[in-house]
Amino acid sequence: MVAYLDNAATTPLDPRVGAAMAPWISGMAGNPSSLHAPGREARAAVEAARAQVAALLGARREEIIFTASGTEADNLALIGTVQASGSGRHHLVVGVIEHPAVIETARFLERQGVDVSFVPVDGFGRIDPDAVRRALRPHTRLISVMAASNVVGTLQPIAEIGRIARDAGIPFHTDAVQAAGKLPLDLAGLPVDLLSVSAHKLHGPKGVGALYVRTGVTLEPIIHGGGQEHGLRSATENVAGIVGLGRAAELARSEMAEDNARLVHLRDRLIEGIRLACPQAYLIGDPFRRLPGHACLGFAGQEGEAIRLLLALDEAGIAVSTGSACSAARGAEPSYVLQAMGFDALRARGALRLTLGRFNTAGDVDLVLERLPALVGGLRPLATARA
Amino acid sequence: MVAYLDNAATTPLDPRVGAAMAPWISGMAGNPSSLHAPGREARAAVEAARAQVAALLGARREEIIFTASGTEADNLALIGTVQASGSGRHHLVVGVIEHPAVIETARFLERQGVDVSFVPVDGFGRIDPDAVRRALRPHTRLISVMAASNVVGTLQPIAEIGRIARDAGIPFHTDAVQAAGKLPLDLAGLPVDLLSVSAHKLHGPKGVGALYVRTGVTLEPIIHGGGQEHGLRSATENVAGIVGLGRAAELARSEMAEDNARLVHLRDRLIEGIRLACPQAYLIGDPFRRLPGHACLGFAGQEGEAIRLLLALDEAGIAVSTGSACSAARGAEPSYVLQAMGFDALRARGALRLTLGRFNTAGDVDLVLERLPALVGGLRPLATARA
Ligand SMILES: Cc1ncc(COP(=O)(O)O)c(C=O)c1O
Ligand SMILES: Cc1ncc(COP(=O)(O)O)c(C=O)c1O
Repeated sequence: MVAYLDNAATTPLDPRVGAAMAPWISGMAGNPSSLHAPGREARAAVEAARAQVAALLGARREEIIFTASGTEADNLALIGTVQASGSGRHHLVVGVIEHPAVIETARFLERQGVDVSFVPVDGFGRIDPDAVRRALRPHTRLISVMAASNVVGTLQPIAEIGRIARDAGIPFHTDAVQAAGKLPLDLAGLPVDLLSVSAHKLHGPKGVGALYVRTGVTLEPIIHGGGQEHGLRSATENVAGIVGLGRAAELARSEMAEDNARLVHLRDRLIEGIRLACPQAYLIGDPFRRLPGHACLGFAGQEGEAIRLLLALDEAGIAVSTGSACSAARGAEPSYVLQAMGFDALRARGALRLTLGRFNTAGDVDLVLERLPALVGGLRPLATARA
Repeated sequence: MVAYLDNAATTPLDPRVGAAMAPWISGMAGNPSSLHAPGREARAAVEAARAQVAALLGARREEIIFTASGTEADNLALIGTVQASGSGRHHLVVGVIEHPAVIETARFLERQGVDVSFVPVDGFGRIDPDAVRRALRPHTRLISVMAASNVVGTLQPIAEIGRIARDAGIPFHTDAVQAAGKLPLDLAGLPVDLLSVSAHKLHGPKGVGALYVRTGVTLEPIIHGGGQEHGLRSATENVAGIVGLGRAAELARSEMAEDNARLVHLRDRLIEGIRLACPQAYLIGDPFRRLPGHACLGFAGQEGEAIRLLLALDEAGIAVSTGSACSAARGAEPSYVLQAMGFDALRARGALRLTLGRFNTAGDVDLVLERLPALVGGLRPLATARA
């Protein structure tokens, strides 16, 4: 048994989600486009899930477009908006610590001739809404700022940024992949026009996501074909996956308050416990405006060692991460997120991310507090290693 | 219990595929990009599935890119090739009866300034390889012709077209969504550079597909982000879905010969039985070079009535289709495929598609032969209805 503290990378599927998906995996699932009974049943299941996702977000059913990932939702928001803007010069305003799904898409569009402004963050990873306002240009087509950082857990002031966008008449996209199901998001009141969700971050299945598209906002599809999802995302629907996202959204909605109270408590015990046992440890990201289950820690004097700490913890049966899962796969590249927050390359390689979810227990936190301090102590300080 | 004869729209999941997927749904599935044990296990599962898909196609593991659908694979092949061709004028050669995933993508590229030639078909839905050769231009970047038609079941001469492409030094894409797992495809010998697969057409899960990309062929991604799938398709991998596609591919490989012998027999009994009982029935598509489980029939004197026949069969517990699932959802639009084969709009609305798969039995065929003739007879001939 592994103590899994990497819920920002992916979450274990809730067994109740698995139960909802089961009939669509083991039974006959028709093609929702088919007119016969199995087709109509599959269509009904997809539409019920759409209502569940809409309810989580305070959106209308027809404003939810199912995709195959949070990444695809982000791509659709950015590329789809630019494509729908016709010819001429276009400009995007994008946060500098966005997930690669936004950053790389913005860079792709840059290569296509689109102007992109990356808005900086402060030492807590926070964007100043005024910096967004100052970045606007007459040909700005979209502002994209994430709701919460996958790397440092910091929440962004999306309501303020949304109001700036609305005042300027510019659509506002927020990547809420880390936030959906964890923060209350009520799109009836929130000035957000496009919002990305990924099922596997809220105890749903991998390979299914959604983009909220406010009524009246125009997008071009990035995947063309049979015209499913109001023509915005063609392909036979992933019925089981969509049903899973729907159920996960429903559970998140009804259990969010309770889950969060528990997670905040566990998270704070984890952070305080580590700081007590490892005096060199410091919290990274905003100490107050952060995701309920998210802890990101640096260890002074052991910069650049997070990857060794990760592997030592893995051997001790504890799964954590450095930075994000994607950058982890790229090896020891320093996190661009931490560098944007003012960390030098060495310190940017030294961050450990411990993220809790619905299935973590006090025992998981105890295990970390029991094992981590010795491992931190066991790493030779880098200065010595170099001497 | 429904007699399901719409396997071209989607197939029931093989229980053995469901069993392979189960641990990745009910258990802890890590993010394959994570470095800890759950992440490495998920990575291993994805790579094992890649090998299984490669084995089905006679390809190499690293030539398989997982996508979220056949549609996405088609989009990646077409858009990715054009994007990788840099600036300048580009030209595509595309079959006129391709699936909307290819047709609509070609039309999208046309709107972006790409030249597209649509190659016609004969009355059997067959493309003349010489017509492909004649369509080539100095700036042709890709030829895309499907391996088998979803609507009429006709197989295309892809080996011949591939040789023409190779002689001309132009990459050749084939949409093998209907063919993979049903026709032996050995890419070691077949001159195909890009090939699309969709899991849900071979008794695997919906929402997962693959694109074969021959070593040396260059593509740009259409979905940008964390750089998964060799940078060609970013997003956290759909581990359960990919494992399902892998197992489905493995089963198709080992059972193809046996399945096909059975399906050809059932299909021919179905076609002959209907023709015997309904003298006005005629087979649509190539009578010899067709998919093993695929029957497409018109009913002379009852043109335009296929949709009523479909609904009557549905009430009788038999699931079939007119044309394709996608066009079905669009209502009574006449099939562009049948029109391209020379059918007028009325006859193009009169086709019934009955498609068999691994789980159909002789009893299903018996049921159709028992119920269909009375229903065909019960429809007032259109001429009378109009009189
Ligand atoms: C020939 C063909 N190509 C592409 C597709 C699209 O595949 P998917 O449904 O996985 O998007 C289909 C079926 O829908 C098809 O029959
Ligand atoms: C903030 C953020 N955006 C987007 C994504 C991409 O989502 P997915 O893995 O579903 O493609 C992730 C996680 O991977 C994320 O944390």
